[in-house]
Amino acid sequence: MNDVILLEKKDSHAIITLNASQSGNAYNEKMAAALWQVVQDVRWDDKVKAILMRSNGSLFSGGGDLRAFQRGSDQQRLPALVEDLSATLNATVIAMRGMEKIFISLIEGVCAGFGIGLALAADLTLVTENARFVAGYIGIGAVPDGGSSFAVLRALGLPRALDFFLTNGVIEGPQAAEMGLVSRLVSAESAEQEAMNLLDKICQGPSSALTRTKKVLIQGVSRSFSEYIEAERQGIIASAAGGELREGVAAFLEKRPPRF
Amino acid sequence: MNDVILLEKKDSHAIITLNASQSGNAYNEKMAAALWQVVQDVRWDDKVKAILMRSNGSLFSGGGDLRAFQRGSDQQRLPALVEDLSATLNATVIAMRGMEKIFISLIEGVCAGFGIGLALAADLTLVTENARFVAGYIGIGAVPDGGSSFAVLRALGLPRALDFFLTNGVIEGPQAAEMGLVSRLVSAESAEQEAMNLLDKICQGPSSALTRTKKVLIQGVSRSFSEYIEAERQGIIASAAGGELREGVAAFLEKRPPRF
Amino acid sequence: MNDVILLEKKDSHAIITLNASQSGNAYNEKMAAALWQVVQDVRWDDKVKAILMRSNGSLFSGGGDLRAFQRGSDQQRLPALVEDLSATLNATVIAMRGMEKIFISLIEGVCAGFGIGLALAADLTLVTENARFVAGYIGIGAVPDGGSSFAVLRALGLPRALDFFLTNGVIEGPQAAEMGLVSRLVSAESAEQEAMNLLDKICQGPSSALTRTKKVLIQGVSRSFSEYIEAERQGIIASAAGGELREGVAAFLEKRPPRF
Repeated sequence: MNDVILLEKKDSHAIITLNASQSGNAYNEKMAAALWQVVQDVRWDDKVKAILMRSNGSLFSGGGDLRAFQRGSDQQRLPALVEDLSATLNATVIAMRGMEKIFISLIEGVCAGFGIGLALAADLTLVTENARFVAGYIGIGAVPDGGSSFAVLRALGLPRALDFFLTNGVIEGPQAAEMGLVSRLVSAESAEQEAMNLLDKICQGPSSALTRTKKVLIQGVSRSFSEYIEAERQGIIASAAGGELREGVAAFLEKRPPRF
Repeated sequence: MNDVILLEKKDSHAIITLNASQSGNAYNEKMAAALWQVVQDVRWDDKVKAILMRSNGSLFSGGGDLRAFQRGSDQQRLPALVEDLSATLNATVIAMRGMEKIFISLIEGVCAGFGIGLALAADLTLVTENARFVAGYIGIGAVPDGGSSFAVLRALGLPRALDFFLTNGVIEGPQAAEMGLVSRLVSAESAEQEAMNLLDKICQGPSSALTRTKKVLIQGVSRSFSEYIEAERQGIIASAAGGELREGVAAFLEKRPPRF
Repeated sequence: MNDVILLEKKDSHAIITLNASQSGNAYNEKMAAALWQVVQDVRWDDKVKAILMRSNGSLFSGGGDLRAFQRGSDQQRLPALVEDLSATLNATVIAMRGMEKIFISLIEGVCAGFGIGLALAADLTLVTENARFVAGYIGIGAVPDGGSSFAVLRALGLPRALDFFLTNGVIEGPQAAEMGLVSRLVSAESAEQEAMNLLDKICQGPSSALTRTKKVLIQGVSRSFSEYIEAERQGIIASAAGGELREGVAAFLEKRPPRF
């Protein structure tokens, strides 16, 4: 592995730590490649059931690496750099949304630009009172990338999402939780512990049902009602066929914890 | 009719009462068949303009009948049972969402698993302070069914919907109203009266405009803007052609109540 | 131009003022044609970067002109009138949502029926505490038109949107902001000034990035995740190719305001 992003695995979970706070956890080709590598690693490791993504230090991510953009600009290759970098970043968030594991993110400070897309590509998102979502794009003449505007649009609706991106807005952690942009607000003191507890809880759950549920909801954001409920139905039939529902029902009726 | 679900009709409305509180208004093949029967009955009865679904006792529904699932499991036919049951339940919520009548639900207590899909397939949903939406699925190794995750996803957005289902969440009535998961919070004391008043108000309204409006919105959840507004447009043209708009406009200008 | 709707242009902005408050800023063929004309005018004027739509007097719009509907009804041509009028109104909101300029609306009073569709077809929507969204349609036997139910449905979700339109609801300005139906609540005293400040801010911004961002979000309301993020990506690549990103990055690193 490398030093800008750390990867730790234990039992059935993995922890990804964004570790380039000196350079703002900003995405240039090196950081993007490192992120892609750890995301692929956890994605295809059959032992990993759940992943936590967090940062060392409170800064989650400052977004794109503007010094790298400046160098690209000096070399007359800014569009090529952006085309390349965005291919990697998009592949990364697609892998996060599509992987058959539950992804949790913990945001304890500033999360700007692509940082928003990355943080909100997780299935469960925890913020502290110090979290701060900063649109940033319009200020530098850019358009949202990496799914950041998808996440905001689908959670907050068009009026708030347009305002946020067109006027270079800021949303604080508590407000993000209040509006449903993230799953939960946790206190800064206990944030790491709560994230670990959630990770443990997910690891003890029924893996197949969890990932089927994730898939139904994520793929369902643009489905019609009838398409949606047929996908739900195939999910619960698979749960019944695969044994998790059988064990879950037996445990419930025997008043014991299930062994998934 | 039968005893597990009651159906009453009066003037232009119908009242469906879930009446198997001893067995938790839980869905097995018998209960699902009874529900399907009453929903079809009201759907094709031309005299019925609006329907209220409520429960005897505060429990709206405990979800799937886990004892029936256990029997299915003992007989090595759990997947077949789930495939069969979910076909009936999906057909039921499709009929509710698609019928040219206005459906109202009143939730006065626990509403778990499929109960959520059923309650929220109504066009207007009233909850009391005692209502309690319980995801339940992950606890028994299951995936959401019957449109329950569709309703939660489209009302609350991906971050909250994923949290609710992946962590086996609970949403209380007042919170459900606050977040827009349901239409309205009513007080437990006056809930039945308020539901009846709403039923009466709907029955006095313009039937065709009401059902066209319902259809435009429900079918529109996955439409693009241009598809959506053309469907709206065909709706208002039909209102003008059918006479309801003519009567509504005349009544308004003559300062008298319309006779739809 | 004409007197029912005023159009003023200055530097790179335009102000559209609904000026038929005596007749309730209500839409008949004349008013619809005037609106269409000013919207087309600003749409194709290359000098205009941003538009503010407001009303003279607090009434934003009473919706359709019911006296015109009555005359149409007397002449046995109500459906033809509605078909014609709605074609113009739909073309207008499609032009607003699609134009490569940022549209701002300011609602300082009643906004009923089609008025909702018009007000909420803007990219940024400001309301004062005196704003009041009135569904109106069901009361006159009509179905929502001009995108009014699209805007409410996508911002508030199905439970609240169905309740609003089926029960002829009212939403006050502060509640509209609270629920995310509009972008912002501004105080009645400073509303015009805040709208002008926002207009100026938009005019100083990066035009191409602003309109690409608008397009990604608006077209994205019904896109799947993978379609969406590829559209985002093409947007940011275009920003890099077009020079705005280059200037934005340089200005940021040189700690000076960007010159877009």
